[in-house]
Amino acid sequence: MTEHGAASQSTPQANIGVVGLAVMGSNLARNLASREGNTVAVYNRSPERTDTLMSEHGDAGFIASKTIEEFAASLSTPRTAIIMVQAGRGTDAVIDQLADLFEEGDIIVDGGNANFQDTRRREAALRERGLNFVGAGISGGEEGALKGPSIMPGGSKEAYATLGPILSSIAAVAEGEPCVTHVGSDGAGHFVKMIHNGIEYADMQLIAESYDLLRRVGGHDPAAIAEVFDEWNKGELESYLIEITAEVLRQKDAKTGGSLVDSIVDEAGSKGTGVWTVQNSVGLGVPVGGIAEAVFARAVSSKPAQREAVQKTLQGRPDIQEAGDGFEDDVQKALYASKIVAYAQGFDAIIAGAEEYDWDIDKGAIAKIWRGGCIIRAQFLNRIVDAYEKDASIATLLEDDYFAAAVREGEDAWRRIVAKAALSGIPVPGFASALSYYDSLASTRLPASLIQGQRDFFGAHTYKRVDEEGVFHTLWSGDRSEIETEPSTH
Amino acid sequence: MTEHGAASQSTPQANIGVVGLAVMGSNLARNLASREGNTVAVYNRSPERTDTLMSEHGDAGFIASKTIEEFAASLSTPRTAIIMVQAGRGTDAVIDQLADLFEEGDIIVDGGNANFQDTRRREAALRERGLNFVGAGISGGEEGALKGPSIMPGGSKEAYATLGPILSSIAAVAEGEPCVTHVGSDGAGHFVKMIHNGIEYADMQLIAESYDLLRRVGGHDPAAIAEVFDEWNKGELESYLIEITAEVLRQKDAKTGGSLVDSIVDEAGSKGTGVWTVQNSVGLGVPVGGIAEAVFARAVSSKPAQREAVQKTLQGRPDIQEAGDGFEDDVQKALYASKIVAYAQGFDAIIAGAEEYDWDIDKGAIAKIWRGGCIIRAQFLNRIVDAYEKDASIATLLEDDYFAAAVREGEDAWRRIVAKAALSGIPVPGFASALSYYDSLASTRLPASLIQGQRDFFGAHTYKRVDEEGVFHTLWSGDRSEIETEPSTH
Repeated sequence: MTEHGAASQSTPQANIGVVGLAVMGSNLARNLASREGNTVAVYNRSPERTDTLMSEHGDAGFIASKTIEEFAASLSTPRTAIIMVQAGRGTDAVIDQLADLFEEGDIIVDGGNANFQDTRRREAALRERGLNFVGAGISGGEEGALKGPSIMPGGSKEAYATLGPILSSIAAVAEGEPCVTHVGSDGAGHFVKMIHNGIEYADMQLIAESYDLLRRVGGHDPAAIAEVFDEWNKGELESYLIEITAEVLRQKDAKTGGSLVDSIVDEAGSKGTGVWTVQNSVGLGVPVGGIAEAVFARAVSSKPAQREAVQKTLQGRPDIQEAGDGFEDDVQKALYASKIVAYAQGFDAIIAGAEEYDWDIDKGAIAKIWRGGCIIRAQFLNRIVDAYEKDASIATLLEDDYFAAAVREGEDAWRRIVAKAALSGIPVPGFASALSYYDSLASTRLPASLIQGQRDFFGAHTYKRVDEEGVFHTLWSGDRSEIETEPSTH
Repeated sequence: MTEHGAASQSTPQANIGVVGLAVMGSNLARNLASREGNTVAVYNRSPERTDTLMSEHGDAGFIASKTIEEFAASLSTPRTAIIMVQAGRGTDAVIDQLADLFEEGDIIVDGGNANFQDTRRREAALRERGLNFVGAGISGGEEGALKGPSIMPGGSKEAYATLGPILSSIAAVAEGEPCVTHVGSDGAGHFVKMIHNGIEYADMQLIAESYDLLRRVGGHDPAAIAEVFDEWNKGELESYLIEITAEVLRQKDAKTGGSLVDSIVDEAGSKGTGVWTVQNSVGLGVPVGGIAEAVFARAVSSKPAQREAVQKTLQGRPDIQEAGDGFEDDVQKALYASKIVAYAQGFDAIIAGAEEYDWDIDKGAIAKIWRGGCIIRAQFLNRIVDAYEKDASIATLLEDDYFAAAVREGEDAWRRIVAKAALSGIPVPGFASALSYYDSLASTRLPASLIQGQRDFFGAHTYKRVDEEGVFHTLWSGDRSEIETEPSTH
């Protein structure tokens, strides 16, 4: 350790350590080192990354170690280390190493994009050994890690007492408050990070549908649409994603002279958290059509063979409808109403997760820490904060006065846009799913009664009556009289 | 065992056994016993059920045992037993008992609604012990079990050599062929059964939306709508579900004198296989909006607090649009086109599952065995058989001449219906999702290019170009030039 300054075995000096020095880990370490009061120990399995960090940012006062033993020894107690390595086995390997070196009360933080179920498993295993394990969702990408991310830590309250001030020192700040809070115990942090990403999928899909409509129905070119998004960014849609959409649409392609977006292959990739959000939400009984349709839309786009095959069989496409007066305004309102639905669904998933896993989650606090540092940051989140501050027990965000009024105000436009898209052959899975969700909640009678009738017919699944307590079954293959019965178990 | 005839320890006589004699198990045992060549051993943990079966159907020639040891001893080799108990731990307990009593080459069949991942785990564990484990999806409910179900067995080819003739003897028969085939190895049978149920959810939801439109836009009462469904059942929509929908809608409620469907609480229940279908399909990267929206629609219907809360904030609902000429015909066409999409998505999930788990699945054979015995049985499945017989390598069912023409033929009506529903405030999550899916496949350019641009902007996720090989990144926070790079790994 002569090169970079030695980790003294006798006088541990670092109050926080980072294991894994790829871009995210390096940036987080630099962020930590830049805040007063922090001395940051760093370690990477292959020493090249450590060397690079030390040579490029040696003035940050890092304590670099060549072995994980030295790294552990360089930490003051309670030892606190943030792991920033690839999710999965890599994480487990580092946890095992640290757990062998750490002592009761020490804190191991996984800052990667772990599946919250893995986090729950790891937390339980380490808790048995007297160690604190904290799964912390960190949002904001490389730049956020360096300049201030939104941080969603789970784990015990005891661990947060030590960890909270350190994380607060590096988090983004929104309206004077650091974008970090103790989300809840064990895997709560990674769960909420997962939902954050699911909402991000929905938000991006709704923006993409808006762009597609402005382009194909509105007839605008990308540069003109960039200006529309600039305008929208001054109103209730103000958000990082709207802002960067304008940036992307404005970008020229040096190779073609046209818009960059026209040179990009239209097959959207994904990394897994959107899929997890859908899998977990549907498992929890929460309808998240806005998120699911966004995940599906990316999947459809990435099936070139299917797209080509269908396009070969087409004999003409429907005529694009006239945009008509106020079309851009209609799209804006449809986008905003659909966005409200997607966020309402996301918060429903958080509520259901908290119930299932016994987490005490402050929904308003979640909306607050998303106001800065992360991809979905937006003024809009203040409306969610307000809603839960007014009444944390609302059955859905759509019930809150502000959101109810916003949806009502956009409703007619939203309907016109979905209708026009359907008639014009423009896919709007996000807009349409959100509208159907809203109309389902708004319908005093749903055809679910017919579905219950069908299920009773073919599977004796029983039904309830609107006018009487109890569980009933019609003897469909008998005399078709109705009997009162026990709920079906098959 | 003096009561019901003794299981001789020295001369095992039964070629097949059934463990678990609740309604499904009893009916399956009776079905087996009714077919020439079968002698059926039966066993239930609590003897009451065995006694009931023997006293009510003692003439079926069952060999009843009071212990599982006797039961095993009553089976000729290779011993073959079908387990019909509650999925989960109950199944594991019975498997463990039988595995201890059975010998190499014997066959344990799980005929319950197991999760195919459990089936894969059980099959692997028993294979190590030289035993055959077969997860067999059995569809058709209680009546199907008795009179002829559709059966979807997985497991080894060796096991199917013994099991196939027995299952063929009890399966439903469609167009002269028994509704059973060897689906593929290990969990393939339960996987395909899961997808069957997912498709069933979609089919029921689309029918429910059709009913809702005929009711609320068309202005018809349930009895009149029953007649519409009767008509539809004579054409390309002919199916068990359409048939029973008419039956349910025609049913009068003795208590109110009105239609039964109006007395049923409009909160649809579910049992898990729809959820599994969505979870697995999305995990396999397969867009299954038709199925997911059906699962979500049931979930929304079952949130009375949310529905009430939203309904309280409403200030009027949109005017219902005029049905206009040909409305019923439009609904019929929208239903058929959406149904085609849902089935195409379901078969895509089967194809993706086969690829992921290395199953050799004959898609046409699956369509064939669904023609009889199961809930989604329909003439329609012959069109799928035809499509895969013509070309098993099509990228999507929508590419097949028949289906492509059917969708084209219904397309305009489908668009009108989705538009009218959106404007009228009638939720059509299934119709709308299917239409957006179709329009996504049909669009030569999708706004997924913008999503790739956004992802590159905030996460350096890179993109591909339409005009050049390679992977690219724009230096968004630099001089905004484009560089060629490696694919992003974070």
